Amino acid sequence: MPNVDLNCDMGESFGFWTMGNDAELMNYVSSVNIACGFHAGDAATMRKTVETAVEKGVAIGAHPGYPDLQGFGRRAMSLSLEEVFDIVLYQVSALKGICEVSGDRLHHVKPHGALYNQAAKDQRLANAIAEAVRKIDGNLIIYGLSGSFLISEARHRGLAAASEVFADRTYQSDGSLTPRTQPNALIADSGKAVNQVLQMVEDQTVNTADGETIPIKTDTICIHGDGGNAVEFARKIRAALDNKGVSVMRP
Amino acid sequence: MPNVDLNCDMGESFGFWTMGNDAELMNYVSSVNIACGFHAGDAATMRKTVETAVEKGVAIGAHPGYPDLQGFGRRAMSLSLEEVFDIVLYQVSALKGICEVSGDRLHHVKPHGALYNQAAKDQRLANAIAEAVRKIDGNLIIYGLSGSFLISEARHRGLAAASEVFADRTYQSDGSLTPRTQPNALIADSGKAVNQVLQMVEDQTVNTADGETIPIKTDTICIHGDGGNAVEFARKIRAALDNKGVSVMRP
Amino acid sequence: MPNVDLNCDMGESFGFWTMGNDAELMNYVSSVNIACGFHAGDAATMRKTVETAVEKGVAIGAHPGYPDLQGFGRRAMSLSLEEVFDIVLYQVSALKGICEVSGDRLHHVKPHGALYNQAAKDQRLANAIAEAVRKIDGNLIIYGLSGSFLISEARHRGLAAASEVFADRTYQSDGSLTPRTQPNALIADSGKAVNQVLQMVEDQTVNTADGETIPIKTDTICIHGDGGNAVEFARKIRAALDNKGVSVMRP
Amino acid sequence: MPNVDLNCDMGESFGFWTMGNDAELMNYVSSVNIACGFHAGDAATMRKTVETAVEKGVAIGAHPGYPDLQGFGRRAMSLSLEEVFDIVLYQVSALKGICEVSGDRLHHVKPHGALYNQAAKDQRLANAIAEAVRKIDGNLIIYGLSGSFLISEARHRGLAAASEVFADRTYQSDGSLTPRTQPNALIADSGKAVNQVLQMVEDQTVNTADGETIPIKTDTICIHGDGGNAVEFARKIRAALDNKGVSVMRP
Repeated sequence: MPNVDLNCDMGESFGFWTMGNDAELMNYVSSVNIACGFHAGDAATMRKTVETAVEKGVAIGAHPGYPDLQGFGRRAMSLSLEEVFDIVLYQVSALKGICEVSGDRLHHVKPHGALYNQAAKDQRLANAIAEAVRKIDGNLIIYGLSGSFLISEARHRGLAAASEVFADRTYQSDGSLTPRTQPNALIADSGKAVNQVLQMVEDQTVNTADGETIPIKTDTICIHGDGGNAVEFARKIRAALDNKGVSVMRP
Repeated sequence: MPNVDLNCDMGESFGFWTMGNDAELMNYVSSVNIACGFHAGDAATMRKTVETAVEKGVAIGAHPGYPDLQGFGRRAMSLSLEEVFDIVLYQVSALKGICEVSGDRLHHVKPHGALYNQAAKDQRLANAIAEAVRKIDGNLIIYGLSGSFLISEARHRGLAAASEVFADRTYQSDGSLTPRTQPNALIADSGKAVNQVLQMVEDQTVNTADGETIPIKTDTICIHGDGGNAVEFARKIRAALDNKGVSVMRP
Repeated sequence: MPNVDLNCDMGESFGFWTMGNDAELMNYVSSVNIACGFHAGDAATMRKTVETAVEKGVAIGAHPGYPDLQGFGRRAMSLSLEEVFDIVLYQVSALKGICEVSGDRLHHVKPHGALYNQAAKDQRLANAIAEAVRKIDGNLIIYGLSGSFLISEARHRGLAAASEVFADRTYQSDGSLTPRTQPNALIADSGKAVNQVLQMVEDQTVNTADGETIPIKTDTICIHGDGGNAVEFARKIRAALDNKGVSVMRP
Repeated sequence: MPNVDLNCDMGESFGFWTMGNDAELMNYVSSVNIACGFHAGDAATMRKTVETAVEKGVAIGAHPGYPDLQGFGRRAMSLSLEEVFDIVLYQVSALKGICEVSGDRLHHVKPHGALYNQAAKDQRLANAIAEAVRKIDGNLIIYGLSGSFLISEARHRGLAAASEVFADRTYQSDGSLTPRTQPNALIADSGKAVNQVLQMVEDQTVNTADGETIPIKTDTICIHGDGGNAVEFARKIRAALDNKGVSVMRP
């Protein structure tokens, strides 16, 4: 029987602004990626999200991003490799400390937004991130886009890597995600998302926006925590996996 | 023979703005307090400052402050006890991680600026800080104003505490520092500062601005890293202590 | 027939985080106070909120606050009088420019949160704010807590002032608001809020939390834009005023 | 006799961190570009810098940049055209207000750092900036890289534009600046910088790093305010222009 990890970005509130339904979503996933204060999250949100994750027994990951609260870390930025190393080291260390104080250990690191997307395609950026993570703790797992430099550079540094796919994003023929600026970037229909997920898990393939079927390594599936029907999506995807006898578990 | 710690606030540059002559000053002190990104410092400055401290062999402390870059953490703020706990946990964890990656362990924690001053007089605030530090690592030492709640609450939480005095600040009869808003708050003459230091170390007393002599517990002496003659001050104080046979060493 | 202004704080979203139902609420109020980027709001949110206000024909005010996004400007801070002058000048100027580009003129200024509360009780702080506003434009109206130094200092500087009362906050015998930290600070029942509003407008009195009835000058009524039932509250208060024949109009 | 404008970026201090010798440099230049709080500068620094500029009689310009204090606005960012419009509108409005309160009118706008460089080559970005400036005040002059889209788009929008050249930067054959990442980007020798300036003003040509001589429209010369010998550079360039009988005056 196959197994797979279900992960969700969380702790994306900031100060008085709330985002997502973290506690509810944690019932359906096996791991969470918690924002570290640069693109979202603040010290209080991080601590509370970690505590909820500990209670729910999900694997805790750090979700470091660019220093851009206003743009939610989704705007590409040109940082030097050294700057990227440093902001990953800072953010992951902060969350690791909060995690340990809350009675758990940090399980993985998944870069956020523009940092994730740029590192997927830029080998040197991916390497800087992997190096920061390895120096913090060689047992940390890196979550990266399936088939990307984040995966290969993590392994090159001797780290375990989990190949990530997306339940509600469409794919291009080269295995990359359709950019959010294009109209068909997102899969709004939960039935289609469920089908995509099952195919990725069972066949390790995905149908692209152009109608091709390409292979895709699937270790962990990202579901989104924002959006009005996030909980509904999560519930359906989890139910479909359970029905098929797929074990949902941390990598 | 008596011994004493000499400490200095460092890592107070931010981005393209530089402050202080950290590498030079590290030749004269036995411990440093490194800003953690909220009132000064950034991920890159923190890492570089930690690396220099490791090279120089000085004890590394975290110097958490209020989230107020513009006011350099010197403006009083009204945070809840929980918010203070959380920002201390976040900042100290970040620096602790950077420290370990750079090959050393974190030695102490000294709150910065308004957080330091408010916690000195507010027992519950001091307790929130001590609780955050203890949860991170029970071996961390808290540096706090001699005679203040930071010292008593650290001990109440089972932590070691170092009673801090200031080389270039004048004292009131109640043992508090003369506020910076008053004209005689600072001792500009290095000879007077040296004399104050020697008296504090040898007699554990200080002469107040009003001409009294009061007892003062002296474990660690703070010298300031900013200001044009900071290095000169540090050199003279260190030389005077060496001349008297006082061992300058971490607590 | 009496008339009164109904105002609401708006533009309190930030980046990807949304707060309030601004467009809907603008149907019930005669003036809005728009956050200026320091405690909430960003350049894009400000411009869009101003454009909606121009469309709806409500009077546009600047809502400057402390530089504290994380605390939403609600945490007291100790700024010098000069610093307060400067941050008010900066924020009001930014919103004034956006207003003019959008085809309207700026109508008033209402300090936000902790800045509002501290200035109500601190004559020199109130004076620094009034001086900044007067220098920008002597025709701007200052909205301040009824009976507070914001009102008297605005007039002292030759500015018009609008005495503000709150629909859903309870009052102390000295005319101050019951602090939010106390359980009875907020009026959750819309019927009670409506009654308080009508009494304040018609009798220029309010019943305090201690059961007294005290005089209160009522030029403008603040209704809150956040909270689940904000629109419902606004609709009911507006309907009650319309029913009584009270004209709801900008001061 | 030819004339030319000498401009310098100023107001680049932030909070307790100081940068540049603004008051001294204002003796040599005819216009200044003042940071607006996003990449450098804060409300207090802006007001003080404006007041000094009014005293010295130099033309005051706004110097808006990306929201990136840590990177000093020098790191490329991917903002939407609407976001760029909004941050320019916000920043220029803030400085314009401070300017008017201080007794002068705003004279020009010069984008900073990465925003300047990206807009030079990206027509739509240049257009968004020009549109924001035009809506604020059609009499404002845009300073942009000589030969770039900032110049052509400003004119396309009906604004006056000043073609900017650099005293201490080397040029490529296509008229662009040698990137700062290359070793020969900066001219460290003041004599060479003076010669480059005189040639640009008198012949409207420049010798490129590759040894070619290319035409370059020269309305305003940027001299840098940071760096140890900034005042010395400014003094020499100004003296050379005075000696040649070139009038140094705002455009």
